Amino acid sequence: MPQLSSKADLMPASPIRKLVPYADKAKQRGTKVYHLNIGQPDIVSPEAALDAYRNLPFDVIAYTHSEGTPEYRKALSDYYKGRGYDVAPNNIIVTNGGSEALLFTFGVIANPDDEIIIPEPYYANYNSFACQSEVKIVPIKSSIESNFALPPIESFEEKITDKTRAILICHPGNPTGYLYSQEELNKLKDLVLKHDLYLISDEVYAEYIYGEEEHHSVLGFDELKNNVIVIDSESKRFSMCGARLGAMISRNEEMMSKAMKFAQARLSPVLTSQYAATKAHENVGSYFEDSRAEYVSRRDILISELNKIPGVVCPNPKGAFYCMVELPVDDAEKFAIWLLNDFDLNGETIMVAPGNGFYSNPESGKKQVRIAYVLKKEDLIRSVEILKVALEQYYAKTLI
Amino acid sequence: MPQLSSKADLMPASPIRKLVPYADKAKQRGTKVYHLNIGQPDIVSPEAALDAYRNLPFDVIAYTHSEGTPEYRKALSDYYKGRGYDVAPNNIIVTNGGSEALLFTFGVIANPDDEIIIPEPYYANYNSFACQSEVKIVPIKSSIESNFALPPIESFEEKITDKTRAILICHPGNPTGYLYSQEELNKLKDLVLKHDLYLISDEVYAEYIYGEEEHHSVLGFDELKNNVIVIDSESKRFSMCGARLGAMISRNEEMMSKAMKFAQARLSPVLTSQYAATKAHENVGSYFEDSRAEYVSRRDILISELNKIPGVVCPNPKGAFYCMVELPVDDAEKFAIWLLNDFDLNGETIMVAPGNGFYSNPESGKKQVRIAYVLKKEDLIRSVEILKVALEQYYAKTLI
Ligand SMILES: Cc1ncc(COP(=O)(O)O)c(C=O)c1O
Ligand SMILES: Cc1ncc(COP(=O)(O)O)c(C=O)c1O
Repeated sequence: MPQLSSKADLMPASPIRKLVPYADKAKQRGTKVYHLNIGQPDIVSPEAALDAYRNLPFDVIAYTHSEGTPEYRKALSDYYKGRGYDVAPNNIIVTNGGSEALLFTFGVIANPDDEIIIPEPYYANYNSFACQSEVKIVPIKSSIESNFALPPIESFEEKITDKTRAILICHPGNPTGYLYSQEELNKLKDLVLKHDLYLISDEVYAEYIYGEEEHHSVLGFDELKNNVIVIDSESKRFSMCGARLGAMISRNEEMMSKAMKFAQARLSPVLTSQYAATKAHENVGSYFEDSRAEYVSRRDILISELNKIPGVVCPNPKGAFYCMVELPVDDAEKFAIWLLNDFDLNGETIMVAPGNGFYSNPESGKKQVRIAYVLKKEDLIRSVEILKVALEQYYAKTLI
Repeated sequence: MPQLSSKADLMPASPIRKLVPYADKAKQRGTKVYHLNIGQPDIVSPEAALDAYRNLPFDVIAYTHSEGTPEYRKALSDYYKGRGYDVAPNNIIVTNGGSEALLFTFGVIANPDDEIIIPEPYYANYNSFACQSEVKIVPIKSSIESNFALPPIESFEEKITDKTRAILICHPGNPTGYLYSQEELNKLKDLVLKHDLYLISDEVYAEYIYGEEEHHSVLGFDELKNNVIVIDSESKRFSMCGARLGAMISRNEEMMSKAMKFAQARLSPVLTSQYAATKAHENVGSYFEDSRAEYVSRRDILISELNKIPGVVCPNPKGAFYCMVELPVDDAEKFAIWLLNDFDLNGETIMVAPGNGFYSNPESGKKQVRIAYVLKKEDLIRSVEILKVALEQYYAKTLI
């Protein structure tokens, strides 16, 4: 067999998928599995988007401009203007999901062996995009004790070398749900200006912020015109994950004109998705308020129920739809496998994402799991009941 | 401004897009431009696909499996079985167009500085995917005199080093329209077996073969189970370029399981496109016959008219919908710009893709242009008339 590259070997197994074989076996045994491991919302996509597909005005499903259709770029620009940010259509390159925006971003700013600093725990696929582009991720640990707040800015400064190209934040965070404050963002601003770095802000969950606080996009920093790159996506905003529609947003013209070469190589983003999402933006109505209301009520019940379990610690996430939960177990991955392999409560169990997969050093997240609240409230409540009983049994077992 | 990577700088400008600013200016002056430069078919997408969008049975546009939906992979497997090739659903990873299949392929088989041998002229975006993956392309020149047939196999053997990972062919060829014979493929088979290389066959135009000859997919080589990777796409097959739906096909299980890591990182191909293309495959009717009949009649008129112009040489393409044309000019790129900038015939002109962009050494294609026959017959005939008059005027001008 011909040789293979080492790129795939360097990509860590996805923490979301790692346990799938165990879940499959549990299902084969007839056990019902509540999927708390995945980030696929169950919220219905906007009616205007679904209607757009039903009334598609094309008879040739043709390539669009590599940078996206004028209509969709305008709709996205208007969306940002509505939120108070000065984003012109030509500051936008439309991509196949936020995923492709990340890939283009890594490719355009970093040569092999260049470094990108990311507070951890972080979205695990950043690792894979980094491997694909031969870029090195330099993690900085944030801790569950401080609700995953921005680590001291000095710890970033310490890691900056002449290979450092960017700091990447996820805002609000997957897997933490943490929302950076304006004060934290100001510190990052000063740092990237001082060292002339990119500030990449993955804001794909920006619409899903709960409670009093507001989301401040880094697009608000006029001084960072050349430094800021925002990763955008319709996947979660409009519950249109399968449309594969995202964007790379920046006012740095030279960088964007180079990013366009990556976009031109793959020809075009999806015509039909751009058309449907344009309609969703133009007829947004109360979609975000309704979805937010649903998520916030799920979060409130989930977090309060979780924290009632002895030994369980779960900071209140301010955004997105994930939380990192510390469990009273030695090894949360083993426990997560045990939940699928050896346990059920009246024929039901839960699947969670082991926390170690979100850290560069797996020891760091060893007692943590990520839980997504993309299930209905009843299912979330039932899931926490299952977790509670499971923890008791698991504890009893270790005493034997 | 923060530093940028050198990747984009290494990506050559697209021969299709290079002249767009000139075309835009011509249009601003009111000149009508016939686009012979692009590969966007005007053929209507299958009614079954359009109907599928109109009757989309989803209310959440959700992620699919990273490898694609079971339904679409089965439809594609059945399509290949129908053509006589043993392709199982699990030999297929569904991608965002053939483009992404190429990117995954380069990434999974080659480390930075590894080499892939490609007969030129070749599809120019191979360069960009190679730059993105830090892979080196080693070209081998095929010539217009021999209709762009496979260069002598010895010239491949000469270029093989310990860095060589694969030979990539486009079959039938963009930009040449050349269709490799079984004999030529056999030579490639022996060579890749001897040196244990991958044979990547970009067969996105496989459905569009004209005349007596048949398309032989490299999937027919059982001995090459571990060596063959086929790049597939619905873009041209079903005139669904904007659906962004393609596939990477191989029976090499280890390689495919590593390619899956690239697929998992970007989560999912497009749900709606997979659904629509599944329906198109299930209800294919006479779609291919009808489209082929249209293309073949366009080809026949285009090639015969072109060859009537004194000094113009155009081999008869056996497939795809492009031809490489040698013009009686010193520099076809300058001529192509002149066509847009300085010429019109009663307010009309043509846009062609300069041939140099399809060669590693631009000198090689200096007298050539690529013409795509994706326009109606009347428009093709009119385009050749324009070309004829333009060549006369251009020649007269050079005599002054
Ligand atoms: C933080 C973050 N960024 C980016 C993505 C990519 O999503 P998509 O490619 O669907 O836009 C995700 C998806 O879960 C995510 O959680
Ligand atoms: C030879 C060849 N390969 C691959 C592609 C990629 O097409 P897509 O990504 O639309 O499938 C094209 C498109 O023109 C092509 O001509």
